[in-house]
Amino acid sequence: MPATSPYTERNMEKEITIYDLAKILALSPATVSRALNDHPAINVKTKALIAEKAAELGYRSNTFASHLRTRKTNTLGVIVPRLNSNFMSTVLAGMEEVANNFGYNLLISQSLESESKEQANAKTMFNSRVDGLLVSVAYDTESIDHFAAFISRNIPVLFFDRVMEHPQCGSVVIDNEQAGYDAARHLLDEGCRRIMHVTGDLRRNVYADRMDGFKRALSEAGIEADSASILSTDLSQDAGKSIADHIDQMPAKPDGLFIANDLCAVTCMQALQEKSYTIPGDIAIVGFNNDPVSQVITPQLTTIFYPGYQMGKTAIMAILAQLNGTKPLIQDPIILRSALIIRRSSKRLGDS
Amino acid sequence: MPATSPYTERNMEKEITIYDLAKILALSPATVSRALNDHPAINVKTKALIAEKAAELGYRSNTFASHLRTRKTNTLGVIVPRLNSNFMSTVLAGMEEVANNFGYNLLISQSLESESKEQANAKTMFNSRVDGLLVSVAYDTESIDHFAAFISRNIPVLFFDRVMEHPQCGSVVIDNEQAGYDAARHLLDEGCRRIMHVTGDLRRNVYADRMDGFKRALSEAGIEADSASILSTDLSQDAGKSIADHIDQMPAKPDGLFIANDLCAVTCMQALQEKSYTIPGDIAIVGFNNDPVSQVITPQLTTIFYPGYQMGKTAIMAILAQLNGTKPLIQDPIILRSALIIRRSSKRLGDS
Repeated sequence: MPATSPYTERNMEKEITIYDLAKILALSPATVSRALNDHPAINVKTKALIAEKAAELGYRSNTFASHLRTRKTNTLGVIVPRLNSNFMSTVLAGMEEVANNFGYNLLISQSLESESKEQANAKTMFNSRVDGLLVSVAYDTESIDHFAAFISRNIPVLFFDRVMEHPQCGSVVIDNEQAGYDAARHLLDEGCRRIMHVTGDLRRNVYADRMDGFKRALSEAGIEADSASILSTDLSQDAGKSIADHIDQMPAKPDGLFIANDLCAVTCMQALQEKSYTIPGDIAIVGFNNDPVSQVITPQLTTIFYPGYQMGKTAIMAILAQLNGTKPLIQDPIILRSALIIRRSSKRLGDS
Repeated sequence: MPATSPYTERNMEKEITIYDLAKILALSPATVSRALNDHPAINVKTKALIAEKAAELGYRSNTFASHLRTRKTNTLGVIVPRLNSNFMSTVLAGMEEVANNFGYNLLISQSLESESKEQANAKTMFNSRVDGLLVSVAYDTESIDHFAAFISRNIPVLFFDRVMEHPQCGSVVIDNEQAGYDAARHLLDEGCRRIMHVTGDLRRNVYADRMDGFKRALSEAGIEADSASILSTDLSQDAGKSIADHIDQMPAKPDGLFIANDLCAVTCMQALQEKSYTIPGDIAIVGFNNDPVSQVITPQLTTIFYPGYQMGKTAIMAILAQLNGTKPLIQDPIILRSALIIRRSSKRLGDS
């Protein structure tokens, strides 16, 4: 280590080695090494003695050198659009629990919905030599070239929720088409006939698929979903307010509203209520995600239960299976169960 | 690398080295190395050529070897009680944004409110050789012995939100005592005289300090906060329901309620409303955190604004300053501004 290194100062304490431990304990380095690797040839008492002294002196197994040999870091990279969404933090909680149980660490970063930041995140993960990468892509991601370096080196890349298609990448999703269908079908069953759908960026499977399901339900009921009945927004809380303003200006107002995000839906609902619309009487509303806010708004919001915790756990299990070679590299998407939860915001026909 | 390594198979592709690049480009290894380190002696066109070829072949700078030299991983460890809380995911979003801007990665894990899991997390972070550690401690953490290994090696440990005291550890907090005082003072100003406080585990500064502030306000008003008026719970949604049941059984019911968590407060409020109590008429309620649910419940919940995003950003800035030696090791706590937000759930005296 050159004396001019900027990092030597705060690390002046020498790293404890196996040789130091051997000297202090008057044992051979080989014995110490074997004991620390839980070798059966070393007796339990000796192992305990060595482990105790190692902990006391702050010995760290030489993981870097070990990485150089095995190329394994026991770290998985995760790139999400935003950390601070209820859905995504639930997914991450599920991921962390399983990863931790299997001795893996998570390196977590956010793209802030931008492809260029996602590219930078991917580069960082690559240089950190993650053993695998889990990604839910940004709003505006157009290509997956920034994951090619992983794929060509057989570092597994798995997409979850917002996925891209690649023959060598696994994915974990819900059936968004069916969920969109269920939401629209329910509004039709409640007597709605002029149903509007508020969605996100249609380059993303989650929004495109929900819209397809929405259209299928309307088509089955003999109703055409024209462009006026579909609004593409960023699904933010501000968008919720704008949608209410927009509806207020419409000559023929919708009697049903399916919004692909709960937080956006409750903000819209509050803005409509301020304009004296009754929910569900004037307009029945269905959201998406089963966020805590959906149970707190009056009337409570009908929504799609989205198994975020399960999605996180499943994604880690799937990528570990691929790392351990127990799964073929080319996989069908793993599709988790979602479900319509009917609450008062959409019940126009009473509880009959 | 021994042929029997379990990890060789999926990494059979050879790692591209500077020597490989030099050979392919018919340049000297020194030139390639300098170009990749952006050395001024190498001209721009040559740098571009080398960078392009390096990217094409998936060259990764030899960060592991470099770590062995500098002992720097550009990784910060973060241990939080739970990833899936609105407050904590907001803190993490702020942390990630600043860390990323400064070229640092975050290793994130959760203690699930258990000291023993927190100990295991700390050990993993230590073995991953994080450059610094940021911790918000679990409900039941009694000692900080599990951080001693970091401290003794001059690896900065910084506590945020739920903090422990140690002369060598920085901390980022809000003034919880003042926030608790403000909440109780407001209820007193609205005419409440039998005020109950629902808090969390009193071993944690955030809850103990809020309670102290609550008691100070009552004491100033000549009211004694007896043990019956303080309830220690886990502040979960289930606890919210139990508190409502408990109040319903009390012969002398409170006319004011200060609950140290918004999600718990709104669940309690809904349960009270189901039992036909009016809010704020029968019972005025103040929560804590300014979670999205606080603006969605009817009536909207008075609460304490808690600057989570700012706390995350500040915590990273503080630990990077310590890493770069621009701050003394022994620091006073950094105290961020919080603020009472008055909404309808506590306004018993109208808007006058």
